[in-house]
Amino acid sequence: MASTQGKVITCKAAVAYEANKPLVIEDVEVAPPQAGEVRVQILYTALCHTDAYTWSGKDPEGLFPCILGHEAAGIVESVGEGVTEVKAGDHVIPCYQAECKECKFCKSGKTNLCGKIRGATGVGVMMNDRKSRFSVRGTPIYHFMGTSTFSQYTVVHDVSVAKIDPQAPLEKVCLLGCGVPTGLGAVWNTAKVEAGSNVAIFGLGTVGLAVAEGAKAAGASRIIGIDIDTRKFERAKNFGVTEFVNPKDHEQPIQQVLVDMTDGGVDYSFECIGNVSIMRAALECCHKGWGTSVIVGVAASGQEIATRPFQLVTGRVWKGTAFGGFKSRTQVPQLVDKYMNKEIKIDEYITHNLTLEEINKAFDLLHGGDCLRCVLKV
Amino acid sequence: MASTQGKVITCKAAVAYEANKPLVIEDVEVAPPQAGEVRVQILYTALCHTDAYTWSGKDPEGLFPCILGHEAAGIVESVGEGVTEVKAGDHVIPCYQAECKECKFCKSGKTNLCGKIRGATGVGVMMNDRKSRFSVRGTPIYHFMGTSTFSQYTVVHDVSVAKIDPQAPLEKVCLLGCGVPTGLGAVWNTAKVEAGSNVAIFGLGTVGLAVAEGAKAAGASRIIGIDIDTRKFERAKNFGVTEFVNPKDHEQPIQQVLVDMTDGGVDYSFECIGNVSIMRAALECCHKGWGTSVIVGVAASGQEIATRPFQLVTGRVWKGTAFGGFKSRTQVPQLVDKYMNKEIKIDEYITHNLTLEEINKAFDLLHGGDCLRCVLKV
Ligand SMILES: NC(=O)c1ccc[n+]([C@@H]2O[C@H](COP(=O)([O-])OP(=O)(O)OC[C@H]3O[C@@H](n4cnc5c(N)ncnc54)[C@H](O)[C@@H]3O)[C@@H](O)[C@H]2O)c1
Ligand SMILES: NC(=O)c1ccc[n+]([C@@H]2O[C@H](COP(=O)([O-])OP(=O)(O)OC[C@H]3O[C@@H](n4cnc5c(N)ncnc54)[C@H](O)[C@@H]3O)[C@@H](O)[C@H]2O)c1
Ligand SMILES: [Zn+2]
Ligand SMILES: [Zn+2]
Repeated sequence: MASTQGKVITCKAAVAYEANKPLVIEDVEVAPPQAGEVRVQILYTALCHTDAYTWSGKDPEGLFPCILGHEAAGIVESVGEGVTEVKAGDHVIPCYQAECKECKFCKSGKTNLCGKIRGATGVGVMMNDRKSRFSVRGTPIYHFMGTSTFSQYTVVHDVSVAKIDPQAPLEKVCLLGCGVPTGLGAVWNTAKVEAGSNVAIFGLGTVGLAVAEGAKAAGASRIIGIDIDTRKFERAKNFGVTEFVNPKDHEQPIQQVLVDMTDGGVDYSFECIGNVSIMRAALECCHKGWGTSVIVGVAASGQEIATRPFQLVTGRVWKGTAFGGFKSRTQVPQLVDKYMNKEIKIDEYITHNLTLEEINKAFDLLHGGDCLRCVLKV
Repeated sequence: MASTQGKVITCKAAVAYEANKPLVIEDVEVAPPQAGEVRVQILYTALCHTDAYTWSGKDPEGLFPCILGHEAAGIVESVGEGVTEVKAGDHVIPCYQAECKECKFCKSGKTNLCGKIRGATGVGVMMNDRKSRFSVRGTPIYHFMGTSTFSQYTVVHDVSVAKIDPQAPLEKVCLLGCGVPTGLGAVWNTAKVEAGSNVAIFGLGTVGLAVAEGAKAAGASRIIGIDIDTRKFERAKNFGVTEFVNPKDHEQPIQQVLVDMTDGGVDYSFECIGNVSIMRAALECCHKGWGTSVIVGVAASGQEIATRPFQLVTGRVWKGTAFGGFKSRTQVPQLVDKYMNKEIKIDEYITHNLTLEEINKAFDLLHGGDCLRCVLKV
């Protein structure tokens, strides 16, 4: 039993006090887990665009001050009353997408979007008392996405921790908290790409590359990568992309370029950027009769997608995915096992390693374009 | 062998000379069928909104003068060279959606949208010589949707005729040429509604009622009909609609009304009007995580649908359907058999009977709101 059990832990965390102002490394007080909660020592965390988006202040639901971060791995420090599925010492990945196995969503068999704790995580607090477990000099600091991994310790709901193989290197598998599963699952769970398919991927960041990897594993014949940053192309070959298109090289709309390249359009397309006009292009480059487009990128608040309904009446399907449709507690451990068996890549997505103290530099890297994922030692 | 075989037939047809001008009953010359073509004596035809839409001049691809009509039944008069699957005397339903069984589309196993003759039917001519078989006093008259059933005789491609049970009453089964299969198939083929589902249907015309009938047959629990014309409600009960909502009775957006009625949204929704803002409402009234919306209505040219991508990222699916996904030559005969076995309704959709001479009155009825389908004796 950890000597810290039942006590407040004071540790380092990166606090976002205000939109767009550098994060501040602070001594944060982390209260013990209450009923149904788990306190986790975060060892490694990566940065993802949702962190940057909320930090930018563009997310109207963003709350400050808060502790961001949702792609991480760590070790359970202690658990609250009634927690049975994990115990101190277990290696875990915090999951922003919970899985309670009991709610209407979990029981539907049709979605991974558990509804149980959303009412609390959506407003930066814990379910039990609708308060935060973080404070700095008496001031509460909001949670973020139910994970808040930019902290040496965090408190999460028990339905939001996936217990994983203790042999797995936490500095790698932390990536299984968001981007990589999102891309793989978009292909395997949401689109269900079959062998021999033609696939178009818009945006070759971590998510787009994971889509490529998933499509290659599914046996896709052609995997066409589209990006405006040609630096992405060389690296993408390693993830299975077979052809590249830079929209800037073409005068025609990109959907027309792809339709021409593929004798009528692709079987599956994936938008991995977060740009609503590219979402439209991704739908419209699909083959009449069956082409399916999956929106993976997250657009800025209030933006809308549009197309002519004829696109759908003539057989195209428009979908989206959150966390690639993976059920987090059940399937994240399986993805860890796949990594351990060398069935999926992780190392190749990690382009930078820094420490929590250097987090502002890490955000700069994320925006720089040369970075896929930067993993921070916490 | 018909004595008319190989000869031009002069017969009555309703010719649309100009957008929005009354159709003119004319003596039309119908050339004999060429290779791969079938000349059909049309005995009964109904009117559908696509006829009215093209006639109105709003369809930018509409060509005049033309002979409209695509929901009909008749008897083969003669066939052209190489036609093997039907012969003089066969009872048939002309199908605006062809099925060649050979093209990329037909062989995909994923769609009913055959591509073989589209290049000709889209521009009002026949494939063989890219000319029309209709003329009036030497002036060619365009074909329409590859069917042109507002004529006592028409010429269609062999891939566009479904051979049906000769016992079936042609004055009824003519409806299986468009609206009724569209609604049934939207449920059975496109959405694949399961037993126990909640379903919302926007628009309770023929297509919406056929959706209701299909949903009832699929075992849907709640079938919610939405229409702004309350005259539709009483009749709709007979087709399986269990609850009614008139958007005019509510101050909230209709999607919110439905979400509230159904604890989070419906499992399946169908837009059977052709109104792009209702298409959006139909998507947004779907349940997070799995709700699927099918666009059946045909919007006016150039109009666009829009929504926030978050609607799709959180698990809703946006689809459409053409002819309900039915493969025409294969499945229309099966639908005729279902009618003969009393498994599907047809009679109940026929609210009016007139003759070809009265076709302008029939268009008035179609716009009047009280009419589902008006069948014309040709
Ligand atoms: N749905 C989910 O559950 C989920 C989960 C994780 C991430 N995301 C979202 O996925 C998206 C991609 O994430 P990422 O980490 O891979 O981001 P990233 O920024 O690393 O990659 C985006 C790529 O798109 C390219 N790009 C930008 N504009 C473009 C354009 N107009 N045309 C073509 N290419 C363009 C960029 O050059 C870059 O390579 C983000 O919107 C992120 O928020 C969604
Ligand atoms: N996709 C296909 O293959 C296909 C095939 C046939 C017909 N269609 C289309 O399906 C649509 C329906 O055809 P139909 O024959 O049933 O038409 P219809 O005109 O008989 O029925 C439409 C119904 O919608 C109702 N309505 C109109 N505006 C409304 C609103 N704002 N809110 C709620 N209800 C409203 C009307 O009162 C009417 O009852 C048409 O657009 C038609 O072109 C599509
Ligand atoms: Zn749940
Ligand atoms: Zn075909």
